[in-house]
Amino acid sequence: MNSKRLEKTYIAVAQNASGRNLNVPIYRISDGLPGPKVYIQSSIHGAEVQGNVVIYHLLNALKHTHIAGEIVLVPNCNPVGTNIKAGEYTLGRFDPVNGTNWNRGYFYDEAKVDAFAADLPDEKITRALAAANKIELTSLKDEIKTQFRQQWKKAIENKLDEPWGLGLAQQLNLTLQKLAFDADLVLDLHNGPVSTRHIYIPEYAKTTATEFSIPHCIFIPKVFAGALDEACFCPWWTLQDALKRRYQHHFDFGVQAFTLEMGSQEVIDFNEGAKDAEGILGFLAKRGVLLNSQYKPAKMKRVGVNLTDYKTLFTDFGGMVEYCKKPGDLVKKGEVLAKVLNIDDLDNDNAIHHINAPCDLIPMLHFPSASVLSGTQLYKCFTNYFEL
Amino acid sequence: MNSKRLEKTYIAVAQNASGRNLNVPIYRISDGLPGPKVYIQSSIHGAEVQGNVVIYHLLNALKHTHIAGEIVLVPNCNPVGTNIKAGEYTLGRFDPVNGTNWNRGYFYDEAKVDAFAADLPDEKITRALAAANKIELTSLKDEIKTQFRQQWKKAIENKLDEPWGLGLAQQLNLTLQKLAFDADLVLDLHNGPVSTRHIYIPEYAKTTATEFSIPHCIFIPKVFAGALDEACFCPWWTLQDALKRRYQHHFDFGVQAFTLEMGSQEVIDFNEGAKDAEGILGFLAKRGVLLNSQYKPAKMKRVGVNLTDYKTLFTDFGGMVEYCKKPGDLVKKGEVLAKVLNIDDLDNDNAIHHINAPCDLIPMLHFPSASVLSGTQLYKCFTNYFEL
Amino acid sequence: MNSKRLEKTYIAVAQNASGRNLNVPIYRISDGLPGPKVYIQSSIHGAEVQGNVVIYHLLNALKHTHIAGEIVLVPNCNPVGTNIKAGEYTLGRFDPVNGTNWNRGYFYDEAKVDAFAADLPDEKITRALAAANKIELTSLKDEIKTQFRQQWKKAIENKLDEPWGLGLAQQLNLTLQKLAFDADLVLDLHNGPVSTRHIYIPEYAKTTATEFSIPHCIFIPKVFAGALDEACFCPWWTLQDALKRRYQHHFDFGVQAFTLEMGSQEVIDFNEGAKDAEGILGFLAKRGVLLNSQYKPAKMKRVGVNLTDYKTLFTDFGGMVEYCKKPGDLVKKGEVLAKVLNIDDLDNDNAIHHINAPCDLIPMLHFPSASVLSGTQLYKCFTNYFEL
Amino acid sequence: MNSKRLEKTYIAVAQNASGRNLNVPIYRISDGLPGPKVYIQSSIHGAEVQGNVVIYHLLNALKHTHIAGEIVLVPNCNPVGTNIKAGEYTLGRFDPVNGTNWNRGYFYDEAKVDAFAADLPDEKITRALAAANKIELTSLKDEIKTQFRQQWKKAIENKLDEPWGLGLAQQLNLTLQKLAFDADLVLDLHNGPVSTRHIYIPEYAKTTATEFSIPHCIFIPKVFAGALDEACFCPWWTLQDALKRRYQHHFDFGVQAFTLEMGSQEVIDFNEGAKDAEGILGFLAKRGVLLNSQYKPAKMKRVGVNLTDYKTLFTDFGGMVEYCKKPGDLVKKGEVLAKVLNIDDLDNDNAIHHINAPCDLIPMLHFPSASVLSGTQLYKCFTNYFEL
Repeated sequence: MNSKRLEKTYIAVAQNASGRNLNVPIYRISDGLPGPKVYIQSSIHGAEVQGNVVIYHLLNALKHTHIAGEIVLVPNCNPVGTNIKAGEYTLGRFDPVNGTNWNRGYFYDEAKVDAFAADLPDEKITRALAAANKIELTSLKDEIKTQFRQQWKKAIENKLDEPWGLGLAQQLNLTLQKLAFDADLVLDLHNGPVSTRHIYIPEYAKTTATEFSIPHCIFIPKVFAGALDEACFCPWWTLQDALKRRYQHHFDFGVQAFTLEMGSQEVIDFNEGAKDAEGILGFLAKRGVLLNSQYKPAKMKRVGVNLTDYKTLFTDFGGMVEYCKKPGDLVKKGEVLAKVLNIDDLDNDNAIHHINAPCDLIPMLHFPSASVLSGTQLYKCFTNYFEL
Repeated sequence: MNSKRLEKTYIAVAQNASGRNLNVPIYRISDGLPGPKVYIQSSIHGAEVQGNVVIYHLLNALKHTHIAGEIVLVPNCNPVGTNIKAGEYTLGRFDPVNGTNWNRGYFYDEAKVDAFAADLPDEKITRALAAANKIELTSLKDEIKTQFRQQWKKAIENKLDEPWGLGLAQQLNLTLQKLAFDADLVLDLHNGPVSTRHIYIPEYAKTTATEFSIPHCIFIPKVFAGALDEACFCPWWTLQDALKRRYQHHFDFGVQAFTLEMGSQEVIDFNEGAKDAEGILGFLAKRGVLLNSQYKPAKMKRVGVNLTDYKTLFTDFGGMVEYCKKPGDLVKKGEVLAKVLNIDDLDNDNAIHHINAPCDLIPMLHFPSASVLSGTQLYKCFTNYFEL
Repeated sequence: MNSKRLEKTYIAVAQNASGRNLNVPIYRISDGLPGPKVYIQSSIHGAEVQGNVVIYHLLNALKHTHIAGEIVLVPNCNPVGTNIKAGEYTLGRFDPVNGTNWNRGYFYDEAKVDAFAADLPDEKITRALAAANKIELTSLKDEIKTQFRQQWKKAIENKLDEPWGLGLAQQLNLTLQKLAFDADLVLDLHNGPVSTRHIYIPEYAKTTATEFSIPHCIFIPKVFAGALDEACFCPWWTLQDALKRRYQHHFDFGVQAFTLEMGSQEVIDFNEGAKDAEGILGFLAKRGVLLNSQYKPAKMKRVGVNLTDYKTLFTDFGGMVEYCKKPGDLVKKGEVLAKVLNIDDLDNDNAIHHINAPCDLIPMLHFPSASVLSGTQLYKCFTNYFEL
Repeated sequence: MNSKRLEKTYIAVAQNASGRNLNVPIYRISDGLPGPKVYIQSSIHGAEVQGNVVIYHLLNALKHTHIAGEIVLVPNCNPVGTNIKAGEYTLGRFDPVNGTNWNRGYFYDEAKVDAFAADLPDEKITRALAAANKIELTSLKDEIKTQFRQQWKKAIENKLDEPWGLGLAQQLNLTLQKLAFDADLVLDLHNGPVSTRHIYIPEYAKTTATEFSIPHCIFIPKVFAGALDEACFCPWWTLQDALKRRYQHHFDFGVQAFTLEMGSQEVIDFNEGAKDAEGILGFLAKRGVLLNSQYKPAKMKRVGVNLTDYKTLFTDFGGMVEYCKKPGDLVKKGEVLAKVLNIDDLDNDNAIHHINAPCDLIPMLHFPSASVLSGTQLYKCFTNYFEL
């Protein structure tokens, strides 16, 4: 494996109030062989740190694995969010200045996809499709893919060059998106508050669920809601749709993107991280990125849910909460999810208020503090879930 | 004025982590005479407190003024946001738990407007319009208005009764919106960071600009972007549009809503507040809410701008900033807006970096701290502004 | 038990920025029988909430137990600290405005003890001691105790009436201290960050360790460092000392105070709370506060440490930490306490830095976040500990 | 002036959670001539940024001024505090993790001074004093000074090398103190919340007041309360005292330290900074650090106060406050200092509560937010002040 290339570079994604650059490390690893490009980032939310351990284990494993293509690993990709402490915890989910979620400022513009599709050399494509042979079509697809990638990255750059400037979260997001948009496979590593492992998968790629080693799968529509995974797959999906409508031919550009939730925030665990990494390596092997490797997706029970059935249970009271069910538990309708202590009624029957499961469900995560105001996200739950 | 009625009630808008209700005071004042209903709230953003002083002065003046209709005053309408301290300042713009802007969770659903319009007794309306006389039309309009109001408030209630619950900001917003939706005139009192007085006015009500006594006017499109003013006027506007398309008749329901920016956050000033209140009283007099009063809009120079020309200047660096122009200043292209000190270059020519105005502009507000990260909103500015 | 009296009252300990009182509930329970007075408070640090559950269980048990004396229970005694959220967690340890620890503003003034001792009717006491019989001495002691209590509470009131006012933490602390200073036994219920159960016991009351059911005991010198337990026992101890020096007689006023650390912050657990309460009931039974009850201190292995051997391990680096040892673990010198991930060296041998135990130790608690700056309290540990 | 030496170096004072060093720039400037050593730092409290501008102007001026001795300038000396944002403001006064004031962790140990004094070669000193001539005494004093400086810096290093580590604020403070302890003149540049310029001067150096160009002077006792100025002058003062007691000779080591409050936090102003710098240059000229310069202390009215008469006015209520007096105003007993708006009583006579000056006073600073809880530091005031 003497052609193994491991390169480390840095990009400045922001400047702090001292005027110093905040750098993000980028590790690129390949064996110089053709194949898909993979992009994996972690910790866009500053307190969600387990992905950094996963990337550490990935790097270690990849040093000893044949790679077809290239894998780009970007740990700790939000050095601002990582470093805002508020008490002992990390205020990592949103910009402390203005509340902007660090994972909602990526670029997407459906009109730009349509314009690109409209600008394609119609006659040439029609001719190629008519005289279709596999090689010609592949080359046509590759050509379109390359052009689209270039134009989209150019659009991101234009956005970044906005003469009046951009907000910090958006600057950060776009800088990362430019890197990610080169990839065919994008994995964004997150954590929940107190959480079990789960994954967001685009509906149209439902079968991918079995290629990961994660027991809980949420299927999301191909709608852009601001996150990196959507920002990576929506443009391609929309382009495929436009081409299908026009040419009745399905161009599959093979670009997919996923958000993986690797357990709870504020915690790293090296042993768990080794397993998390193995799961990702199984996926990469399945996709032909790893050659002759022993990695493969785990055999396991998998449960799926459609996004509309992934429900958030909010409180309509304030108080002190015991979370009676753990993330991943199978909960029957009517079972006690939480007990709330009422400080002003410790001497009577209102001391404890029970919150029951409104239906059969599996909690994926719960709020990480016993102290809640009304309107707090107590649990996020799978309902109407199904086995895969 | 022996029929003057001043009523004070409270509504609980949230519970804190001690399980106690957080109450908002509601002052209602009228003389029992018919007329428009007015709703005025302040401090939905917790650090924007000058509106509370304005309401104090309004109440004092209204005690001695004949009112046609009713005026509902809701000061300090966000007791959560008011009470989150982070250092000496108030973290009042967003929910400290999740970053949600306290002014973006109001209800709007265009489909519900269309459904309402479609359900109207078509034949009856057509007939009334055909045989139109002023009294009949007014009564028809009033009937539609009453029904629409009821349905919309019912929709808000349904939303609040969501079986899985709602987030805190949304609960708060909807509870207030239910009150505001009864009104014909809605004023939402805000402040900017370091700011001069300005007002947001719907484009379609541009002439209203001269009814207020505020020198800087931003004209916004009739698009719902989440704020209270939009949540109050968009449904009516959309309904008017639908009815116009169907019956070629312009029903003017007379509902308008405005966001007033009363100077800088974190500051109250009783003298300024008296002037602010006088301006609002002038508007109310102009609209027939105050009878035989001496109040009227001030004669003043007014400058307007379209929302697309209301520009935010972001930094692309971090450092320490002197804001060289004050909100309200007329700034020429190329003039120095800000000087940035670079701590690491105090000994050379890079010590100070100048930021120049990219075009002629009037800053409305600037960031309230010298210390900025890259991507900070330095100034918000009128560009391409015009005299009214 | 028809004389059981359970009374609930409220005291306002602060006002928030809305100008509303923040109330603390006070539950008093007795059977109208003579006996010691007990004061138990919880949550002076806002995120340390398990004590509230303990008080709930105590109240429930005490309803069915004969009480000699009176027990005053003050849950959630810091409604300011309880309600400052910063992200999902509670910023409960210090005043968010100025950083003041909520548990360091109690009153103590050694000079006042000395002055009180000097003012005692010397001749009368000397005579009583000379002609000493048990009844006379007890009555003398009770007289001194009552007078001292009155004077000390008066001193606290004077402090609270300071003409230029007092800081919030101090106002809160003094208001609670006035209640606590009436008691003979004071328990202050706390939590650590991620923590096992432990207790602070004054050195001079070392034997008390076996009266609680808590396995880890820290023995503190009789020095006032600002906390409630010290503020409650130091004045009496100092007074006893002064009287001993003067009269060669040991007056034991029987006042003791303890800080109990009931596990981890940000968590409540009703089952654990029941056990915590049982331990406290065992202590109260032992002290004669509970009559004919089945409660008694648990038989268990107990480990003690002197405060000087209770060590804090600080980091001298920043990074992401896995805490390899759990609070309560027996750790040998050289064992790995923590692994630190270095984001910039994931590709080389510096990726993981090990922190080893500098000596045999038992961690009591560790930091609750993986993300640490240099100078972070990683662990607090028993060293040179001994079995009791 | 061809021997002008301007050197810039960096020291790492902390690591952030990304594991990166946080560096502080150190500018040293001299002409290679003998003379006093001066140390000036700014922004130990992160939001107090005007001192950085002052240092910028100092550097510019010093490039063109003959210097006897050396001047060390350390701007932005707390890169952690500078970079914690909480909303738009900087949470710069205390460590956001634990509330520790960034300006209270310096080293002082009176016992170490006494031990040093006791270890001096008694006979040699007695002999030198007996046979005293000016040169011999100066050389003796210099010898003692050098030795003491070395020992003290060694003690600081030992503290920093503490095997169990140190908290972040203390690490930062000690690292800076090691630099400052080399100096004969130490200036620590701060700001108040909303503040006028004032200075802290040790009582024993009262006459220094006229060497600065700052109108308000607070005289502090020679007691160590944790701040840098005290940490710099207390050891020398205590040493002088010890030597005086032993040898009846006053050794004046000529070390002095001052805290300068350069107006309001969160603001920089280049014009004001130029004046601030000129005042400091006047002081340095007066002290012989600047040669043949035109700088001299301003002729101005100066007002002084003893620390015990520098009073903090706390609120005993919560609400919204208008600060009616500006820092620097002469206020007569009974004049209105503040008006407090009571949201729940806008309709009656309790709407506004007045806070009157309890005596004649000059406010130095007031709280920077209208929204206050009970127990807030409303104003800090000179009382019983006197003209200098």
